Amino acid sequence: MSKLEAVGIITEYNPFHNGHLHQLNVIKEKAPTACIVVVMSGNFLQRGEPACLDKWTRAKEALANGVDLIIELPPQACIQPADRFAFNGVNGLASLGVDYLVFGAEHAEYDFMNYASQVQGLKGEFKKYNQSYAASIQAAITQALGHELAEPNDLLALAYAKANLKLGSPLKLQPIQRIQAGYHELALKAGQQIASASAIRSNYQQGRLAELRTYVPHETYVDLSDNSLVFWDDFWPFLRYKLLTTTPKELANIYGMAEGIEYRLVQKANELAHGSSFDDWLHAVKTKRFTYTRLARLAIAMLLNLQTEDITSYNEAPYFRLLGFTKRGQEYLNAKKKQFTYPLVTKVTQKDAKGPLAVDYRVGKLYQSLTGKEQDLKKAPLRIF
Amino acid sequence: MSKLEAVGIITEYNPFHNGHLHQLNVIKEKAPTACIVVVMSGNFLQRGEPACLDKWTRAKEALANGVDLIIELPPQACIQPADRFAFNGVNGLASLGVDYLVFGAEHAEYDFMNYASQVQGLKGEFKKYNQSYAASIQAAITQALGHELAEPNDLLALAYAKANLKLGSPLKLQPIQRIQAGYHELALKAGQQIASASAIRSNYQQGRLAELRTYVPHETYVDLSDNSLVFWDDFWPFLRYKLLTTTPKELANIYGMAEGIEYRLVQKANELAHGSSFDDWLHAVKTKRFTYTRLARLAIAMLLNLQTEDITSYNEAPYFRLLGFTKRGQEYLNAKKKQFTYPLVTKVTQKDAKGPLAVDYRVGKLYQSLTGKEQDLKKAPLRIF
Repeated sequence: MSKLEAVGIITEYNPFHNGHLHQLNVIKEKAPTACIVVVMSGNFLQRGEPACLDKWTRAKEALANGVDLIIELPPQACIQPADRFAFNGVNGLASLGVDYLVFGAEHAEYDFMNYASQVQGLKGEFKKYNQSYAASIQAAITQALGHELAEPNDLLALAYAKANLKLGSPLKLQPIQRIQAGYHELALKAGQQIASASAIRSNYQQGRLAELRTYVPHETYVDLSDNSLVFWDDFWPFLRYKLLTTTPKELANIYGMAEGIEYRLVQKANELAHGSSFDDWLHAVKTKRFTYTRLARLAIAMLLNLQTEDITSYNEAPYFRLLGFTKRGQEYLNAKKKQFTYPLVTKVTQKDAKGPLAVDYRVGKLYQSLTGKEQDLKKAPLRIF
Repeated sequence: MSKLEAVGIITEYNPFHNGHLHQLNVIKEKAPTACIVVVMSGNFLQRGEPACLDKWTRAKEALANGVDLIIELPPQACIQPADRFAFNGVNGLASLGVDYLVFGAEHAEYDFMNYASQVQGLKGEFKKYNQSYAASIQAAITQALGHELAEPNDLLALAYAKANLKLGSPLKLQPIQRIQAGYHELALKAGQQIASASAIRSNYQQGRLAELRTYVPHETYVDLSDNSLVFWDDFWPFLRYKLLTTTPKELANIYGMAEGIEYRLVQKANELAHGSSFDDWLHAVKTKRFTYTRLARLAIAMLLNLQTEDITSYNEAPYFRLLGFTKRGQEYLNAKKKQFTYPLVTKVTQKDAKGPLAVDYRVGKLYQSLTGKEQDLKKAPLRIF
């Protein structure tokens, strides 16, 4: 690899843990001089939940542990079904002239680009009214490939590959075998140093902060100790308020609203007992046609007042946001920035309360209303040299 | 007075105190057999604030202290400038066939109906951009009457008289001299048993519950002891959330929004420091053209998502809501209800989540989301016999 070669990762770092560090170390071993470019979700995540630590804190953890350049995927690009999310992430890396995309997969031996060409354009039959869209697509993929592809990171990998194919294959894909922690595993396993981000958050919520020391780098441990992590229930009073006072008709323009589900979302909020949680509401609204993840994402879209036209505007004019860089990241920026395909926004100011960055502005203000930490105004990209 | 004669009052009872009790006693002395009919604001009040106790609690206090029939003025009728509020209250009493309207005034000797005929149709000149509408109207009234009419209860009395005139004078007006406590006085005065509702709330907030025993009937004292009173700051996180996530364009349909003030309301919310209160925001948005009361009412309209069409619909088809009655109140209802001009709603059910009672339903749900006490569903009118 030449000095200016770049390796890209699409992440959430929610929070940054030893599994992420392991991935960076594998990259550094194979390409010691490459610039590691990360596209990270901001304060709200693809699966429909708030980030447990704000984007600046997570970016700092990443830069302290080997990432060279960290870019935010704006909320309109994150709060999306997996395929759209993957496309936006790949598009971001491609826009920045990145050469390789590294990702964890349960089956790193799979040829995902080949799979992508087999399933490109596939749509679920979507005739069965008791089946979710995800399940329907899943069945179609199995049929096309001749075997199941069901594990979460493998599926995400396929989504990256499809996005890459669609963009004319600007990136070379480099799967890394996932080790130790399963994506959904919530228990910490003795004798291991890697746990899933879900397990880390779940154990934090249960008050087992001290036990997390083994599973996260020092910077993350300090952040977990110094901050009150943010969870859905912190925002739930606001969403509940919105559901109680907004008519279904007013919710119809929210991105992702479909099949009249807005009536059910409002009705179930009205019927909840006093003191009910976000999960109580989610369980009450669940139907066979809507997965929990889809409903949670819809909930985030409502919370953020993300309207269909916000998404359309973003898709027509994508942009990304610079969160921070190391010295190597800065060199990369200086050498390549003139070739970037899309704008790389370096600041959000008071003027952006309206205009193309209005969503970033308002989403930052909302997250900030909980934590008290400025998310946008007067924030310059982090420089960790 | 015949047995079925009714004396009406328009109130807030926020909370019911000795001044209110005094007023009822004066009425009972003069008309011992009359039915005392009260039209009361519900859970949100005309001056743009939540009621400190819910409407059922306040209705119970009133019925326990001499009121015979208590009717709620729906939110669309309450969250209104004083003239509209007064009209809706008078309209409610007239609709119920009430004969007299009793109210406190700083100058009970004034002939308010006569004044009303002198100022009917007056509009403020409203040319001066540094003057509020209220101040402008005030100047016009002074000019018409030849003397100032500036004290709050006198002004409200004039508004009642104007409303009565407009409706063809169905009610006879009976001013009562206000005693002891001024409307805006916040201090409790030793040796007196009457304090303003503002003074009572303010002292409660300062933790002086025990001192309030002198100023309120027993029932109210128990309610003040058993409940956590509700104030604007309890709802402020919801309004702040709304201001942070809603575009000014989406706020333009809120009732009372004018002159593009929505841009300022949103901007000032965005600029507030972390932990700022409702009052901080109100002070930040204040301009010479908008009084505090008008802004607070606008804030309630935003909080409740009261849209211009909600008000129009109410004005086209007014209704009132039965909260409770004594035996005498029940007799009055039985004798007169066939002659009532407008619907007297006795229950709100799940079906009313949409339709003409949708505002009542949602406003109840919102208030209830704080207190945990059911406001509408399964609530039958109180019967205190």
